[in-house]
Amino acid sequence: MIEYQQQIEHALKNKKYGSNPKELYEPIEYMMSLGGKRLRPVLVFVACEFFGGDTSKALHPALAIELFHNFTLVHDDIMDKAPLRRNQSTVHKKWDDNIAILSGDTMLVKAYQELCKFDSVVLPKLLELFSDTAVKVCEGQQLDMNYEKLNKVSIAQYLKMIELKTAVLLGGSLKIGALIAGADEKNAQNIYDFGKHIGIAFQLQDDILDVYANEEKFGKQKGGDIVANKKTYLLLKALEMVENNRYMKEELHQWIKAPNFDAKEKVNAITGIYNFLNIPELARAEMKKHYDMALTYLNGIDVDDIKKQQLISFADNLMVREV
Amino acid sequence: MIEYQQQIEHALKNKKYGSNPKELYEPIEYMMSLGGKRLRPVLVFVACEFFGGDTSKALHPALAIELFHNFTLVHDDIMDKAPLRRNQSTVHKKWDDNIAILSGDTMLVKAYQELCKFDSVVLPKLLELFSDTAVKVCEGQQLDMNYEKLNKVSIAQYLKMIELKTAVLLGGSLKIGALIAGADEKNAQNIYDFGKHIGIAFQLQDDILDVYANEEKFGKQKGGDIVANKKTYLLLKALEMVENNRYMKEELHQWIKAPNFDAKEKVNAITGIYNFLNIPELARAEMKKHYDMALTYLNGIDVDDIKKQQLISFADNLMVREV
Repeated sequence: MIEYQQQIEHALKNKKYGSNPKELYEPIEYMMSLGGKRLRPVLVFVACEFFGGDTSKALHPALAIELFHNFTLVHDDIMDKAPLRRNQSTVHKKWDDNIAILSGDTMLVKAYQELCKFDSVVLPKLLELFSDTAVKVCEGQQLDMNYEKLNKVSIAQYLKMIELKTAVLLGGSLKIGALIAGADEKNAQNIYDFGKHIGIAFQLQDDILDVYANEEKFGKQKGGDIVANKKTYLLLKALEMVENNRYMKEELHQWIKAPNFDAKEKVNAITGIYNFLNIPELARAEMKKHYDMALTYLNGIDVDDIKKQQLISFADNLMVREV
Repeated sequence: MIEYQQQIEHALKNKKYGSNPKELYEPIEYMMSLGGKRLRPVLVFVACEFFGGDTSKALHPALAIELFHNFTLVHDDIMDKAPLRRNQSTVHKKWDDNIAILSGDTMLVKAYQELCKFDSVVLPKLLELFSDTAVKVCEGQQLDMNYEKLNKVSIAQYLKMIELKTAVLLGGSLKIGALIAGADEKNAQNIYDFGKHIGIAFQLQDDILDVYANEEKFGKQKGGDIVANKKTYLLLKALEMVENNRYMKEELHQWIKAPNFDAKEKVNAITGIYNFLNIPELARAEMKKHYDMALTYLNGIDVDDIKKQQLISFADNLMVREV
């Protein structure tokens, strides 16, 4: 996997997007050079290899996915008014909103240009999948914005939102790799669903780790989601469960509504509520459910078991690395 | 042409973009229903017919172009903080900036989806042209934003900006029609360049008409560009020419810098300067130059003269209708 990551990083380093006007292209260069794990393009390679395909053909579609992913980050950061991305200024902060809108737009077009370099009869299929996935990601981002403003969000709504906003792109990346390798529709769809459910499990794990991670290993401040009232699985589940417990309901809502509070105190209090309600268990059970569903889809693929074991190890490694 | 327009309007009326979340899809429905001349998709049909192609195949690529054009309008309106589009609220005013960013993004993806419905060996060529044109339009919009802030913009810079921001999409629409009809690269490129130069001539005419139109026929208030200090061909040419005339330079710059002024007085004063400097003649000469270049490219196409005459009449009609 490291080799794929290096190959992608090398290709990105040498890629020229354009030069004039520089206000359009410098933000693209900047964003694409911020790094990250390059997980999605790596998945394109991994799936291509998994189905015995020629991975030398995977580079352009992989870069297309990475360009698309970064386009969504640039626009999401405007919408979320986020000042930082990977510990660096976001594009709209370093330049301005207009430049971030327009350079994001250009990145989306560049993603299609990159994908279209894959010169093969499979191209229409890749394009169809790519666009379908892109639309879903936009839908997921809209749902996320909607839910931020809603008082009540159900667990089902939350799971659908994270499926669209983040999980389908992992599934889509894997399926693109499968199609490049010439996998048939059934197998390609199975690896898509594998990736989608792994993606949902990832997100649930993220929600859990925010509160229950070993702080030193995780490298983030514990309880950041709690401080920000972020509607995670944990909070939504807690809100659902306190409905029948007037006292606890009042306490939870008071912490959520409090305009001024000591962060540590809030994190401790809400963690206490979570623990009392058994939320971590429930969250882990939901995570496990999606992890197991992923494995079921993987089992449905006509590929040697040893390769499946490798793919599971790869996914497990990704999940462990985050802890 | 009317039939093509009606066919496009009918198809747009029946088109379903999606329904959930409605915050994403209602702005798309709204924007696509605001009407307009549908010039760009009509050009796809016109060029397809011009090259003797099967115009029943032109619909999806034509709709793709219209979706793309409307995506650019949604995002441009955010950047320009424009409250109105076709006398209706702009998307970011009726909803908000975030929704306008995201529904615009979705429209761009939908444009690609629409284009990809054109199931033929020509698709990769269409996609290449479509993306190249899209990137140019983004570059043009960035240049336009840059030039708004610049004190000095040369005529060459201005012409390049309008070429990218508006003219290449007219050329691109025609070339897509040509490729659908199976025209060869030389002929297809000629009609692209025809459209590009007609587009530049259009824009220059717009600049002229703002000041010199018959107000009743034109239907807009005269001198809107002058009041707003819009960097049109007329203003940029005047700024260039007054460099050697200290007195007139001072007068022009005073009007431009004035924080408070009577609109009619400003329009009259600056029109007076334009007239003194012969700006309308110079602008018409530049317009004529591009119109003639367009005809030269048209002449280079291997198609019956009678069809060329029809295309010229069509273009002339478009130009006259605007007066």
